[in-house]
Amino acid sequence: MLFGVTGDLARKKLMPAIYDLSNRGMLPPGFSLVGFARRDWDDQEFGKIVHDAVKQHARTPFKEEVWRALCEGLRFVQGSFDDEAAFDELARTLAALDEERGTGGNHGFYLSIPPGSFATVCQQLERAGLSTPHKDAWRRVVIEKPFGHDLASARELNAIVEGVFPADSIFRIDHYLGKETVQNLLALRFANQLFEPVWNSHYVDHVQITMAEDIGIGGRAGYYDGIGAARDVIQNHLLQLLALTAMEEPASFAADQLRAEKEKVLSAVRVPTDIAGSTARGQYAAGWQGSEQVVGYLQEEGVAADSRTETYAAIRLDIDTRRWAGVPFYLRTGKRLGKRVTEIAVVFKAAPHLPFEDTATEELGRNAIVIRVQPDEGVTMRFGAKVPGAQMEVRDVTMDFGYGRAFTESSPEAYERLILDVLLGEPPLFPRHEEVELSWRILDPIEKAWAKDKASLDQYEAGTWGPASADQLMTRDGRVWRMP
Amino acid sequence: MLFGVTGDLARKKLMPAIYDLSNRGMLPPGFSLVGFARRDWDDQEFGKIVHDAVKQHARTPFKEEVWRALCEGLRFVQGSFDDEAAFDELARTLAALDEERGTGGNHGFYLSIPPGSFATVCQQLERAGLSTPHKDAWRRVVIEKPFGHDLASARELNAIVEGVFPADSIFRIDHYLGKETVQNLLALRFANQLFEPVWNSHYVDHVQITMAEDIGIGGRAGYYDGIGAARDVIQNHLLQLLALTAMEEPASFAADQLRAEKEKVLSAVRVPTDIAGSTARGQYAAGWQGSEQVVGYLQEEGVAADSRTETYAAIRLDIDTRRWAGVPFYLRTGKRLGKRVTEIAVVFKAAPHLPFEDTATEELGRNAIVIRVQPDEGVTMRFGAKVPGAQMEVRDVTMDFGYGRAFTESSPEAYERLILDVLLGEPPLFPRHEEVELSWRILDPIEKAWAKDKASLDQYEAGTWGPASADQLMTRDGRVWRMP
Repeated sequence: MLFGVTGDLARKKLMPAIYDLSNRGMLPPGFSLVGFARRDWDDQEFGKIVHDAVKQHARTPFKEEVWRALCEGLRFVQGSFDDEAAFDELARTLAALDEERGTGGNHGFYLSIPPGSFATVCQQLERAGLSTPHKDAWRRVVIEKPFGHDLASARELNAIVEGVFPADSIFRIDHYLGKETVQNLLALRFANQLFEPVWNSHYVDHVQITMAEDIGIGGRAGYYDGIGAARDVIQNHLLQLLALTAMEEPASFAADQLRAEKEKVLSAVRVPTDIAGSTARGQYAAGWQGSEQVVGYLQEEGVAADSRTETYAAIRLDIDTRRWAGVPFYLRTGKRLGKRVTEIAVVFKAAPHLPFEDTATEELGRNAIVIRVQPDEGVTMRFGAKVPGAQMEVRDVTMDFGYGRAFTESSPEAYERLILDVLLGEPPLFPRHEEVELSWRILDPIEKAWAKDKASLDQYEAGTWGPASADQLMTRDGRVWRMP
Repeated sequence: MLFGVTGDLARKKLMPAIYDLSNRGMLPPGFSLVGFARRDWDDQEFGKIVHDAVKQHARTPFKEEVWRALCEGLRFVQGSFDDEAAFDELARTLAALDEERGTGGNHGFYLSIPPGSFATVCQQLERAGLSTPHKDAWRRVVIEKPFGHDLASARELNAIVEGVFPADSIFRIDHYLGKETVQNLLALRFANQLFEPVWNSHYVDHVQITMAEDIGIGGRAGYYDGIGAARDVIQNHLLQLLALTAMEEPASFAADQLRAEKEKVLSAVRVPTDIAGSTARGQYAAGWQGSEQVVGYLQEEGVAADSRTETYAAIRLDIDTRRWAGVPFYLRTGKRLGKRVTEIAVVFKAAPHLPFEDTATEELGRNAIVIRVQPDEGVTMRFGAKVPGAQMEVRDVTMDFGYGRAFTESSPEAYERLILDVLLGEPPLFPRHEEVELSWRILDPIEKAWAKDKASLDQYEAGTWGPASADQLMTRDGRVWRMP
């Protein structure tokens, strides 16, 4: 059951993912898809929309028989979110499907809609008796970020959704990470003996977590303006990556244990007080992205000419645990940066002593383990090796592991994976509301200080690596940003 | 000044290396090469021999003007090693060169001859007044392995050579390692912060040092038969690699400090007592090397039909230091094995706990850092990564660094490097007599036990990875040999 069927996400990702799962035989028998929107469509017209979306965006080949089987379970309910009659109609449609197709009262509600409507829809679902399952059936609700815009609104939102659905029936989707990245990181850290021993303040100098985009805001001004880079990316993606990088080993991968470790480390993140000294932000100005000349943020369609929304944000965070005391975590994200890349770079201290002549090794970089999240998922290690020849000269080199090259198995598309996890009821890797609130706790004082401080919003040229203040943030600490 | 000019080594390696150095402008002005042999040659005939060797084996292009310049310094002295008149003639020739070409009394004597003649030649050099330099000049002597065939003979040999030349004028060449490998290993270990922290018994399960050859003994039966794999390779190459892998960090790369660390760790190697339980040996039988059918060792030309010389040897050694207690070092070498490869594999313990389901990760190998010495010099790391897909399945993957791919600088050929070091008087990486004797101390009881025990010499088929007893050596310890 999908709210928001006319949106981009539904057409480009969700509908194609459902087809691909069906094509691979991963959907349960009787699976049905009910669309809900204001459009005046009937089931056939809705079917046409899904058909076109699948044809255009599915990853697997289009097969007429797969499509026909899927098509039999397509239904459409017309209405707006405040229309009680429409929700009653939805309830009847679902009940009829349970009868006709044996779906047994198991209903998942995917809220691919603006968060402002979450409350209304949840309350409508409850009123129409759709939030409470009968007997052994399940009801699950899927929500997408943003999970509020600050701690107070996140709490409010959580209260609304959890007032209607039990906590373990709520799936907060961080599609960007997907489940693969999370599990890759955990496998790397905990299935090996090589990395954990040096994964701490004795050996690590600092950690850099980067999510850089080369694109601008595109047509998303309505959503993005007033939200900005920190709320859009740091609050969810980057703090989740920080949690996975910094957390202790969970006793097992069971949902509660994994979430407990993430919450533990997030709660140990020191809430920043010196905001000026530990953050940087900026707005992209016109510039060149490769060979394309692009406009600045303020010239983007739909952005107010005096907008103070940041499109780049960088934060230094400290974690008050035995493992990480004294090791800063630098998080940065931005649009219109030099390259599209998401990575976690664990940068090591210099070797405590070099038994070589000073001259040749002075400029040696620091060892690093870089977990590449996208686009070329893998691991890179940087270390020093001797340059061939008569001198003892050491130079930085890298070695590389790529998931794409190492495995013939291909990674499932993030949404296929996530939809399947919702259907299977596997919540371990979706964040709980505690995590969401812990993240806002970190971001709130920053957003508040930024809102007051009118001076500190730098411009940066599109295609560069962010504002000068971001470099100063590192320079103050005697460090530099990696050039990914 | 070269003894043994008619030998393979002189023609294939030494003469071409001298030309290559000359071609690259690395030889000192006035450099001259004096050959000494029984052949009835004059300078011109000797020049022809050098010319042909250079043309056939040099790495750099043949240039007439380089050759002519080199040719001017070529001299030949005819004689046998017990011929006093010949050594007097040699002394006159060298004195004349000092006059004519300004070599200033600096003489290096390269003894590319059987070790049985070392004593005679050294004594002759002394008698002819060639071992003691005048004023600021130097005299150096270069000797090749074998440095004796047991501890007693090594001591005797060292006494003879060191009776004539001071210890720091004696260059013991281990051409196989060359200086590059040694320095690569030291740079990897000590210029980085990533490796040293796990380079100890807390994390390392065991170390495997392998030098495998795919060739047989070729025409070297006269040298090899009666010597065998342990004396030929383990005593020098593999124990040197063990020392470099296991030693503590030297205060600097100065000759004395580096040698002191190597000696310290060699002296901490426990001399094996349970020889049957900690060694294995074998002799290659007929078989297939790739598509080529090859004869067994006993059928090789020049090998006694009842020879009991091993062509494969494997030893387990323990190092009684705080760093390595409980971590066995397995050394193996052999001819007619599956592949030509020399490597040091540091194999780590399993992760102490895996927070995944047992089934998927049970068969996970152990992490390893493999230092590839040849043929494709570099570093490989083996670790576990998650297989893409819905399950949490972890599989071993590798990542790789290759010197050849990372650097445009090419490694100097081992002999060019070593000859240059002799001319420059840089002894740090050549083993001292203490190291040679410490190595024999480890090997002596093994050789003695093997000589007594007639039963334990297995056959192994050419092209395989050695005798069954070698596998049993590992199986007893619950381990397996790497398949390089």
